[in-house]
Amino acid sequence: MNTPSQPSAYAPLKNDTFIRACLRQTTDYTPIWLMRQAGRFLPEYRATRAKAGSFMGLATNVDYATEVSLQPVERFPIDAAILFSDILTVPDAMGLGLSFAEGEGPKFAHPVSNEAAVAKLAVPDMDKLRYVFDAVTSIRKALNGKVPLIGFSGSPWTLACYMVEGAGSDDYRLVKTMLYSRPDLLHKILQINADSVAQYLNAQIEAGAQAVMIFDSWGGALADGAFQQFSLAYTARVLAQLKREHTGARIPRIVFTKGGGLWLQEMGRLDCDVLGLDWTANLAKARAIVGDTKALQGNMDPNVLFASPAQIQAEAIKVLDSFGTPYAGSGIGPTHIFNLGHGVSQHTPPEHVAALVQAVHEYSRKLRS
Amino acid sequence: MNTPSQPSAYAPLKNDTFIRACLRQTTDYTPIWLMRQAGRFLPEYRATRAKAGSFMGLATNVDYATEVSLQPVERFPIDAAILFSDILTVPDAMGLGLSFAEGEGPKFAHPVSNEAAVAKLAVPDMDKLRYVFDAVTSIRKALNGKVPLIGFSGSPWTLACYMVEGAGSDDYRLVKTMLYSRPDLLHKILQINADSVAQYLNAQIEAGAQAVMIFDSWGGALADGAFQQFSLAYTARVLAQLKREHTGARIPRIVFTKGGGLWLQEMGRLDCDVLGLDWTANLAKARAIVGDTKALQGNMDPNVLFASPAQIQAEAIKVLDSFGTPYAGSGIGPTHIFNLGHGVSQHTPPEHVAALVQAVHEYSRKLRS
Repeated sequence: MNTPSQPSAYAPLKNDTFIRACLRQTTDYTPIWLMRQAGRFLPEYRATRAKAGSFMGLATNVDYATEVSLQPVERFPIDAAILFSDILTVPDAMGLGLSFAEGEGPKFAHPVSNEAAVAKLAVPDMDKLRYVFDAVTSIRKALNGKVPLIGFSGSPWTLACYMVEGAGSDDYRLVKTMLYSRPDLLHKILQINADSVAQYLNAQIEAGAQAVMIFDSWGGALADGAFQQFSLAYTARVLAQLKREHTGARIPRIVFTKGGGLWLQEMGRLDCDVLGLDWTANLAKARAIVGDTKALQGNMDPNVLFASPAQIQAEAIKVLDSFGTPYAGSGIGPTHIFNLGHGVSQHTPPEHVAALVQAVHEYSRKLRS
Repeated sequence: MNTPSQPSAYAPLKNDTFIRACLRQTTDYTPIWLMRQAGRFLPEYRATRAKAGSFMGLATNVDYATEVSLQPVERFPIDAAILFSDILTVPDAMGLGLSFAEGEGPKFAHPVSNEAAVAKLAVPDMDKLRYVFDAVTSIRKALNGKVPLIGFSGSPWTLACYMVEGAGSDDYRLVKTMLYSRPDLLHKILQINADSVAQYLNAQIEAGAQAVMIFDSWGGALADGAFQQFSLAYTARVLAQLKREHTGARIPRIVFTKGGGLWLQEMGRLDCDVLGLDWTANLAKARAIVGDTKALQGNMDPNVLFASPAQIQAEAIKVLDSFGTPYAGSGIGPTHIFNLGHGVSQHTPPEHVAALVQAVHEYSRKLRS
């Protein structure tokens, strides 16, 4: 892979709070960013989206993807940017034919529903995903060192859910039927997905991503036992192949399993720097279970953002207090990255996000003094 | 409340395995029943449903409700029957106007969306729910002592979700907006719901229900902290008002919070006999957390039933082994009631349920020998 520009040519990072917190280093305050921050709750996003015509038109156009990735960073003093893209770009590059019908979720024209379809599956040519890597480089340049850029991918299991179901699902009947009746086929898909995701994230790192996150959005749908075998094991397989550093900088890795709170002990053994948590988790308990080996990211209910700014502030303080003091003296220890427990809702008033960011920054500074 | 017949007139219970397991007494095998066992996966249910014309036509007609409640008991050697009804009968009796549009979920004509609507809310006249109590008595009679009959209700929080949203939801935005911005209103709704549910379940007990179950189907959507305040506390309020005995027989109470595995320690302190678990929980760990004070019910993934009978048997054995030996010598101890972690899917082949019931009965007998 050639990357379009030398990463060393990028501007130095002015705000490294997020990266430091990922690596469990002291920071002056608790950094914050929001999942789906480049999204529909922002009027400027909706304007760009209208220009682009469609969701994929937005995601595949480097200029538009750059524009929307920068929008939340320009509006709020958040501590990280995240690549605007979709989690289903990788199976699309495998030839499954991704589309987004208006008002519906993603759909694949060619779901992987039988043995013949599995046999045809392979790690895609990364050149088919060049639009993503070009976007990463373009966003990194446009950020000009303001905050770090996070790259991401869906987890092997989460991709498999969509690939087998052909769309979103509320019971995962098709992929779980495969899991329980033809586990060999599902393992084959997951191996291919894991190796694809690893190549995909490494290419994002080479293109300029300063941290990477694996979204295991549907890991929480699995039964105990099945989660370890069909999700966690393949997330570990991705992590084992990821570049740890690029041009001398550590590249932190974040793993987020929505609904994975029951498996935190096992997730604590993953070779990653940060574990993301949804709002069902108790940060103090999570910290006690995971120990000092990982930073924790999360976990306010996105619905808090529909309350008043004063109530948002109170809930943000609860979350910060629940995590507690970041480190006790040693200068290295468990750290907290504030986030929501899931993506920000499209119905969120942008000024409520401003109130949240301010509350987290102010109160977390106080916590340290 | 007058009940249409004297419970003492009922035939004595021939198979008390389920009741004994609920009360943590020794049994010869692990009892099994399935959530939503009186449901669409059975062709005989679909035939009765067609005769009834609509879902509410089925639920409000005593003869039809009796017919479909008996169907799974006639087809499979399961160890309990459950009342056929809907969890939204109580808010319907409050005047919210429940309807089921074809192919959609439940809908309320008058959702509780503001302060004025909350002010109008009250515990409904239980006479409006007489069709439910009549069905309980009719089913109990028709069972003729074959297996015990379980009555049920939605939890105060789960009812509130539907009442405020006006329908099902995937983000609970409206009810959570109320939770975070007007907690006083939500507490008012939950108090009324708790007292209504308690009266409703007590009337089911008087009408002939031999055990009662509270379905906290949406408890797992709550944030840590909010769950304890807005769901658990009101489930406890229901339990505090429930009759413990009826005509000399203990009435076991079961509480099932879908997605509640993280709060098992707190749920272990509820004044109930059984905790239901979904498939994300590990039964051995749950047993260690809850201790010997409760029976556990669950927790196979309903999607296992799409695999082959041999694979279903293997997964059932895994679940039974995960719980382990029911009691060690003392004759009283933690017991296990086999169930799925959620309702049986409408797409399930009935003969696969037969294979599951057989596997659970056979293997659990072996476990005890």
